[in-house]
Amino acid sequence: MKKILLTKEIINDVLKELGDYEVDIWDESKDGYLTKDKLKSIIAPYSGIISMLSNPLNEEVLKEAKNLEIIAQYAVGYNNIDVNYCKQNNITITNTPDVLSHATAELAFALLLNIARNISTSAQETKEGAWKGWEPKGYLGTSLKNLKLGVIGPGRIGTEFTKMCQGAFNHEVFYYSRSIKEDFEQCFQAQRLELNELMKSCDIISLHCPLTNETKNLLNKDNLHLLKKNAILINTARGEVIDQDDLVDILCRRNDLKVGLDVTTPEPLDTDHELFKLKNVIITPHIGSATTTARTEMGNIVCKSVKDHFLGRTPKFKISHENH
Amino acid sequence: MKKILLTKEIINDVLKELGDYEVDIWDESKDGYLTKDKLKSIIAPYSGIISMLSNPLNEEVLKEAKNLEIIAQYAVGYNNIDVNYCKQNNITITNTPDVLSHATAELAFALLLNIARNISTSAQETKEGAWKGWEPKGYLGTSLKNLKLGVIGPGRIGTEFTKMCQGAFNHEVFYYSRSIKEDFEQCFQAQRLELNELMKSCDIISLHCPLTNETKNLLNKDNLHLLKKNAILINTARGEVIDQDDLVDILCRRNDLKVGLDVTTPEPLDTDHELFKLKNVIITPHIGSATTTARTEMGNIVCKSVKDHFLGRTPKFKISHENH
Repeated sequence: MKKILLTKEIINDVLKELGDYEVDIWDESKDGYLTKDKLKSIIAPYSGIISMLSNPLNEEVLKEAKNLEIIAQYAVGYNNIDVNYCKQNNITITNTPDVLSHATAELAFALLLNIARNISTSAQETKEGAWKGWEPKGYLGTSLKNLKLGVIGPGRIGTEFTKMCQGAFNHEVFYYSRSIKEDFEQCFQAQRLELNELMKSCDIISLHCPLTNETKNLLNKDNLHLLKKNAILINTARGEVIDQDDLVDILCRRNDLKVGLDVTTPEPLDTDHELFKLKNVIITPHIGSATTTARTEMGNIVCKSVKDHFLGRTPKFKISHENH
Repeated sequence: MKKILLTKEIINDVLKELGDYEVDIWDESKDGYLTKDKLKSIIAPYSGIISMLSNPLNEEVLKEAKNLEIIAQYAVGYNNIDVNYCKQNNITITNTPDVLSHATAELAFALLLNIARNISTSAQETKEGAWKGWEPKGYLGTSLKNLKLGVIGPGRIGTEFTKMCQGAFNHEVFYYSRSIKEDFEQCFQAQRLELNELMKSCDIISLHCPLTNETKNLLNKDNLHLLKKNAILINTARGEVIDQDDLVDILCRRNDLKVGLDVTTPEPLDTDHELFKLKNVIITPHIGSATTTARTEMGNIVCKSVKDHFLGRTPKFKISHENH
């Protein structure tokens, strides 16, 4: 009977859904955090792995995975997996796109509203008794009506996010992408700009691109300083898309900027990190896909991907190695 | 020269805008909080007052206001003012409607997103180091897509809020109001319901009614228990529209509910209040109108109202006593 490793417990009843196979669920509370070395030492017998972004499936680990046929990644991104090694060794990779697009876009939208209107800061001060009474000049925020929105990476999530922004606040939409996105342009009367131009022109910049060699440190000291006065920057993509040290540098000099991050480098950040000391920054714990709906659907997909593969069918969300 | 009292410093340069009059700005840092007794003792010489919700302009205080002609309230609500006394004594009251509708609707919308997706709780835990790593079952929130929205008080603010909800999330809209609101129904394909029916049917309930004798404790133990499983309740109107003790009671029994409050009874609440202990409640410090845009426009209106009155013109936003 083929063996499957699930690296963290998920909402779905995986033992039932994958009842035809032998499923091991890594139990962190009993066996501790699944480090690279632990993963290396246990991976050999498994034909399938249901993996998380936090599992380092690099060459060093995969060399031990003598029986591995499929990695069903419980996420849309898979920058934790050595795709080239998998290609050479005939290991199928699948992911969970689409089903988390709305949830992640919603999270970006929630961060935007939160930071624009000082929700978390003001709520925390209220809770702690630091708020003494209503003040005409207290906790002044930015209205989001009719602003200019700049989307970096107008894919599925970027499109959902733009729908929310334009639907609620009538934003004028600009985007940055390697290629022209005709559907996006038509849907939102959006205009494509060079990155520097986008940074200079928009009141809101939101990142929705995957992490690749091209997008690593895409935002850095050469372009972060171009941000408009009072601009809002949102990152729900990957921490590494922003050079985090450069971000800290600019934020220490410009307290007009507001930043909402669902992703950082690393995750979690040390509690004494500079970003936690800034009032104009909010950081959530990588909860882009954290709705009951999205996580249930992600669970359905990983189970179906593994089953399809073992039954000789091509999983619907198989990663095409041609893109790499 | 007529004397004007401004009870708190505002963004606008009032001394310049009202340069033809003698303006005193109450300086809390120097003279302490403007209590009822202090207000009583200083009010006599003023012909005009630019007042805040926190200023008790009841009969006891107004009896001392021998020269008072106009109260220009820096808010849309004016439940701090004895309207009948003003009517009998020919004191004009003005408020600042419209200009804060968008800002307040936006705040209700921000609270909705915040509480639906656990933004503040999860951000606080991240900051404190309580978050140890990404979990498939961590911080699961509610997706807002296609839910049923119930608006209590479909006036200007309620209408702006509904536009945002329907524009971003395609909500099906229901409302509760004394009278049929045809424009609202047409604009959102909205359906009017009895209060109990609204509480039972909707995933989101948002309060946008003024505080009156009729709306005081409108939500109480008789209807709060009707809330749907996982319902979200938002109050950016006035604390007194909800019986707060009844709210605490139900929240202690039902942790599926989520509540966002920008208003409470009193403001601020004591820091040991039960509401601060609940993870499914977020409380902001009455910042509905707290955007630079809205507060500047509110300042423009109060100055213009006072000037218009003193120059013998009827202020545009004069409260009609006929409604009371």
